[in-house]
Amino acid sequence: MQHEIGSRERIVAAARHLFATQGFHQTPMSELAVAAGVSVGQIYRLFTGKNAVIQAIVTEDTAAKMTELQAMNASVKSGEFSIEEGFVALAQRALSKGDEALSFEIMAEAHRNADVADTIADLCRDFRQMIRELACVANPDLSDNDLEGAEELILAFMFGLGHRTLSRPQLSEGETARLTGRMILAAVRAL
Amino acid sequence: MQHEIGSRERIVAAARHLFATQGFHQTPMSELAVAAGVSVGQIYRLFTGKNAVIQAIVTEDTAAKMTELQAMNASVKSGEFSIEEGFVALAQRALSKGDEALSFEIMAEAHRNADVADTIADLCRDFRQMIRELACVANPDLSDNDLEGAEELILAFMFGLGHRTLSRPQLSEGETARLTGRMILAAVRAL
Repeated sequence: MQHEIGSRERIVAAARHLFATQGFHQTPMSELAVAAGVSVGQIYRLFTGKNAVIQAIVTEDTAAKMTELQAMNASVKSGEFSIEEGFVALAQRALSKGDEALSFEIMAEAHRNADVADTIADLCRDFRQMIRELACVANPDLSDNDLEGAEELILAFMFGLGHRTLSRPQLSEGETARLTGRMILAAVRAL
Repeated sequence: MQHEIGSRERIVAAARHLFATQGFHQTPMSELAVAAGVSVGQIYRLFTGKNAVIQAIVTEDTAAKMTELQAMNASVKSGEFSIEEGFVALAQRALSKGDEALSFEIMAEAHRNADVADTIADLCRDFRQMIRELACVANPDLSDNDLEGAEELILAFMFGLGHRTLSRPQLSEGETARLTGRMILAAVRAL
């Protein structure tokens, strides 16, 4: 049992590297097995297929991010963090997200594969809920429609910050988080 | 000559479809040739390789978008459009952008391939310039540092709006553009 947990972790870690550097479809199960130090049969005992490995990566990443966000939301609600500090922290989380190459590879696959798309959609639902709570703290008077607009803005902004490397930004991550966090607060209050 | 232009267009159009639906690496040149109704040799006479086909797609998409944006910036500067209408139009352009699956496929490849990354970076530079001009109209008093922050926010927001499908948004494109355009203006004015 302990051994299987170790194998599962090694398979997911090796898949992250291989999917990002050479792509999902260009990575045969045999290569993944060698990189993880397991047999192909062992991968199939732990995962139904390559899709299930992608889903494990998405779920693992989002679980870590949701835990962080929940802690941050709690700090804002308790008054330990101001709402502006909350949005700056949100921007920092987006900027420090993991592997962009892997993220693009997974999203390309999600457009071809309904199971991967469903996994991403489920996780976005939880994520939207967290953003919504923060928007309500920033502006408690928002109508339902305006709240949806604020949610779209914050989600789009975080997604963009998390995938900005190819645009070769000049501004440091710290300054970007400080300025955009302040701007997002003003944006949500303007509705 | 006329014939070669037609072939080039057919190759790029077929590549868009095949790269989006089955991926860049899973599309052999032979399949691209069949789909475009040309010989493999003809593809290699017009393009140095598959990378050059991707670069043609990126350049074509960005040229179309830049022309639209330049016209919109001119309308804002002449006073025909208000700056709020300008940001709403910017959001609309982002929302109605083309094929997200193809976009993710190209960006995944850009992380593996410096030539594709350079093509994207060149085009982002022009795009950043357009955004900067709009931010200066919205708030002429921005310091250089604040202007860079505004540029990062607007770029991130547009990128996110253009790739939001997997998050399964509820709000219509029209309402999203109307509300987020207004919010972005307030954000840039808050610095």
